[in-house]
Amino acid sequence: MNLNGVFAPVPTPFDSHDRLDSAGLKAAFAMWIKGPLTGFVVLGSNGEAALMDEDESDRAIAIARDVVPRGRPLVAGTGRESTQATIAATKRAASLGADAVLVRTPGFFKAQMTHDVFVRHYTAVADASPVPILLYNFTAVTGVNLLPAAVSRLATHPNIIGMKESGGDVAQIADLVSGTPNEFQVLAGSSSTFYAALAVGASGGILALANIVPDACVRLLDLFRRGRHDEARDLQRQIVPLSKLLGQAYGIAGLKAALKLIGCDVGVPRPPLVPLPDEGVAALKDAIEAFQEVAA
Amino acid sequence: MNLNGVFAPVPTPFDSHDRLDSAGLKAAFAMWIKGPLTGFVVLGSNGEAALMDEDESDRAIAIARDVVPRGRPLVAGTGRESTQATIAATKRAASLGADAVLVRTPGFFKAQMTHDVFVRHYTAVADASPVPILLYNFTAVTGVNLLPAAVSRLATHPNIIGMKESGGDVAQIADLVSGTPNEFQVLAGSSSTFYAALAVGASGGILALANIVPDACVRLLDLFRRGRHDEARDLQRQIVPLSKLLGQAYGIAGLKAALKLIGCDVGVPRPPLVPLPDEGVAALKDAIEAFQEVAA
Amino acid sequence: MNLNGVFAPVPTPFDSHDRLDSAGLKAAFAMWIKGPLTGFVVLGSNGEAALMDEDESDRAIAIARDVVPRGRPLVAGTGRESTQATIAATKRAASLGADAVLVRTPGFFKAQMTHDVFVRHYTAVADASPVPILLYNFTAVTGVNLLPAAVSRLATHPNIIGMKESGGDVAQIADLVSGTPNEFQVLAGSSSTFYAALAVGASGGILALANIVPDACVRLLDLFRRGRHDEARDLQRQIVPLSKLLGQAYGIAGLKAALKLIGCDVGVPRPPLVPLPDEGVAALKDAIEAFQEVAA
Amino acid sequence: MNLNGVFAPVPTPFDSHDRLDSAGLKAAFAMWIKGPLTGFVVLGSNGEAALMDEDESDRAIAIARDVVPRGRPLVAGTGRESTQATIAATKRAASLGADAVLVRTPGFFKAQMTHDVFVRHYTAVADASPVPILLYNFTAVTGVNLLPAAVSRLATHPNIIGMKESGGDVAQIADLVSGTPNEFQVLAGSSSTFYAALAVGASGGILALANIVPDACVRLLDLFRRGRHDEARDLQRQIVPLSKLLGQAYGIAGLKAALKLIGCDVGVPRPPLVPLPDEGVAALKDAIEAFQEVAA
Repeated sequence: MNLNGVFAPVPTPFDSHDRLDSAGLKAAFAMWIKGPLTGFVVLGSNGEAALMDEDESDRAIAIARDVVPRGRPLVAGTGRESTQATIAATKRAASLGADAVLVRTPGFFKAQMTHDVFVRHYTAVADASPVPILLYNFTAVTGVNLLPAAVSRLATHPNIIGMKESGGDVAQIADLVSGTPNEFQVLAGSSSTFYAALAVGASGGILALANIVPDACVRLLDLFRRGRHDEARDLQRQIVPLSKLLGQAYGIAGLKAALKLIGCDVGVPRPPLVPLPDEGVAALKDAIEAFQEVAA
Repeated sequence: MNLNGVFAPVPTPFDSHDRLDSAGLKAAFAMWIKGPLTGFVVLGSNGEAALMDEDESDRAIAIARDVVPRGRPLVAGTGRESTQATIAATKRAASLGADAVLVRTPGFFKAQMTHDVFVRHYTAVADASPVPILLYNFTAVTGVNLLPAAVSRLATHPNIIGMKESGGDVAQIADLVSGTPNEFQVLAGSSSTFYAALAVGASGGILALANIVPDACVRLLDLFRRGRHDEARDLQRQIVPLSKLLGQAYGIAGLKAALKLIGCDVGVPRPPLVPLPDEGVAALKDAIEAFQEVAA
Repeated sequence: MNLNGVFAPVPTPFDSHDRLDSAGLKAAFAMWIKGPLTGFVVLGSNGEAALMDEDESDRAIAIARDVVPRGRPLVAGTGRESTQATIAATKRAASLGADAVLVRTPGFFKAQMTHDVFVRHYTAVADASPVPILLYNFTAVTGVNLLPAAVSRLATHPNIIGMKESGGDVAQIADLVSGTPNEFQVLAGSSSTFYAALAVGASGGILALANIVPDACVRLLDLFRRGRHDEARDLQRQIVPLSKLLGQAYGIAGLKAALKLIGCDVGVPRPPLVPLPDEGVAALKDAIEAFQEVAA
Repeated sequence: MNLNGVFAPVPTPFDSHDRLDSAGLKAAFAMWIKGPLTGFVVLGSNGEAALMDEDESDRAIAIARDVVPRGRPLVAGTGRESTQATIAATKRAASLGADAVLVRTPGFFKAQMTHDVFVRHYTAVADASPVPILLYNFTAVTGVNLLPAAVSRLATHPNIIGMKESGGDVAQIADLVSGTPNEFQVLAGSSSTFYAALAVGASGGILALANIVPDACVRLLDLFRRGRHDEARDLQRQIVPLSKLLGQAYGIAGLKAALKLIGCDVGVPRPPLVPLPDEGVAALKDAIEAFQEVAA
């Protein structure tokens, strides 16, 4: 399965009673699939998967599968803290039509998350999964780091086809690329360093920013692939201010607010998360407009 | 409700098929209640709650309630990442007979876990809970810190009666005590600093070590309360080596191995956690024997 | 040499041309020695030693020696990054009359500052020093941690008589006390945790706060020694707000501003440090007055 | 002054009595200048400047100036903790013939090293310096971070011509480049991310690795400049293993051992630093040979 390209990790709409908004999710996908993105990730960190129960998770995948045409990869996040729950979620996602799964590292028992524990966990999941799996390292939220040595080892498993590395540590991305076979797909998760990640060998990205400016993200990858480095670097610089606001600064609240600003209302985050305050919305609006001007 | 005293955060037994071992849990409680502990916490971090599903969690509470006599407080961990799931788990725990609940901070979206978010989350949970709640701060696993300023604010809620602070930062415990009313109960979670926590005003502890050497933990509190500081400090020094092994070094695997060494087999941790390697078991055995000698 | 007690790490006055203000230092000492403090430390972190050259350092010691009566220990900070410079500074300090020296860990090459390197460095300095030495760990500024295992080893050296531990990690202080002979003197450096440090076995403190409220610091130690724990703990709580302002929040600028507020003008810090802004001075004034009220 | 290119931050030889080895430094420079490097930095972190006194520092600059031909930039490290000492060292370096100075951030009083303090410090140094200055950020050793916002501000000073950023955070390097005028020269300090740094706009590097494999470092820059990205990236991958050993893992001891392995004996580091143990030397030897094979 070829996952080289740009994916949006889509947010999950909730209604005013804090329930999964199925109609809203369907409507949002109808818009997203019109764009140039390679594919979509549901139930990633940006999908607020950590705040949803198993039943809601299944419904979100089913809705996405209904709308996303075969041929454009649909990836579902299925990482859980226990190995057995991860396997169960993975099997359900596969049966609901996910083309691949994105499996975040467990991270609750940080001190025990060693190289060996990661290798054992992912091997068990990959052995049991009906669909290919992507490793997923997001140290800023998990507090653990899936290091290149463990990834090298896991990359030999036939059912582990790639990885999302959400950190901005470009040296670590370079090491992940060097330490894995050519067909192992390293996808960047940080749009602030997307160009640099490509420069050291990443094959694409799963970028929150791709929800907001999908064309720009796809164009950046395209420029890079054609060897038009100066233009790619310029475009990278243009997206950085918006990228930073959508990162840890504003989080999910920022992503949902930005989507609303561009005409796609996916509601507000689930509590304990809170909606973006007005000054945040104003800053996002400015950043989006500033980007549209320079990019025009 | 008076929670001043020493509590054991009990582990959850799993069987060889990685399922909740109800009989094992019942048997273990039969032993634990013979000791001098003030009460018990089920589904804390040491209970591997993060690795259990909702159904298993409910069953564990029901089993504990069956065995623990009224009059000895039974506290259930009910923290979840979303406010609604925390409230649901809290209500279920109360209906299953928990006397109080211990609500760990959410921590997945670290950058968004501000003072205001914590105040709103805990207020919503406390408003909805049929039983009193204890705040629970465990920065080493959550990566977030519930600071004294937020606790001061929350301590005014009539249904928030205290807090477990798992960190070893004694200055923070002192600030928690100073910033809350006298009846607000600050319980220490780190046995390595138990005496120091008492010295700055903690009223008791929820200590993994209390699973292994309950008499010593209770005696330390008793010595402190009688003003026999030198003896309390000596006892504290004697428990430190064992306490450190049971902390982050060996984690749940160490706690379960230590229980087995003293004759209470609660199985091994749930994957991805792995059993303690042999050299770890040997070190624990030495530390337990060394403690028994000095304490004799 | 008995260093149990409370010491002030005195600031160094500079004049309006950013030169060592010898007269100012002499005048300040004339005031300080009237108080109840056990002794004094010149050229500690609070003395801005890191910003002074070797000649200025020597003059500061000579001035202090002139004023501080024999019988009240005068300790000089002599830590440098290289072993040879530390030895040279130590010998000069001894020849200028310092009763003991306080030797901060080197910390520039953080990754190389291992247990063995610390043991070798301090052994070389202690071998060469004409006067007893105190180890000095201040992780917040050096970025390295002199751990209890290394201190245990060094405490056997006849010329190493104690240690200043500036961190607020009370468990580490407890470990330092347990791992060293009774006559090894562990002095706390953080006034926010002074009572807790005493509770776990520290024998005194070298406290920036002792420059401002020497009587309170000495009384706290005295209450503790008499077993009047409740009063000691109350006094500790009263000093915490002022203590926190004088710590990392305001640093040297805060210490100098606070001294000016109580009538002892020692000038402003040396650049790149800047004087405390007006709102900081106002906050300090409030904290000093609030303390004087509760303590009255 | 054009500093775009590759510089070696040269080590300082000490003799068996731990004194500056002037003859050794002169001999080493005789070898270094035969290579293709753009220029040299004396008294950088790798030069053990933190372990040397003022007189030794001056002599090292004088020796270098004697040997390095005019036309190849000679840069001297002159950062000190105080502003006045930094200015004095800078003036002496200029009078001894340094073409530019590299001024590391002060970092002892970490909590006080704010944006404004950095701007004031560097402005004062740049105003006073007879030669152009390079800012120097090395968070791993100083514990402080000179952020792009402060650099943007300082880059407008006519006597501040560039910066060495030693960290591997490529996003920060990208921000430094975006936030400064085109003629402001951002030089990378981490050879593990040299290609990535160039990709985001760095104009060269000051690389410890350039002491050992100067040709490869210069070739990497040359490949990049010619747009031969694939070859540059391959070469980058080849240097990473050696680069990592020379970084924090082995530090100065590793750099000196590696130089000895390639026939340039510059002695051992100054205590408290210790020589590289035998197994480290063996690992370095392997890495150098492995590099020579793939690069051949």
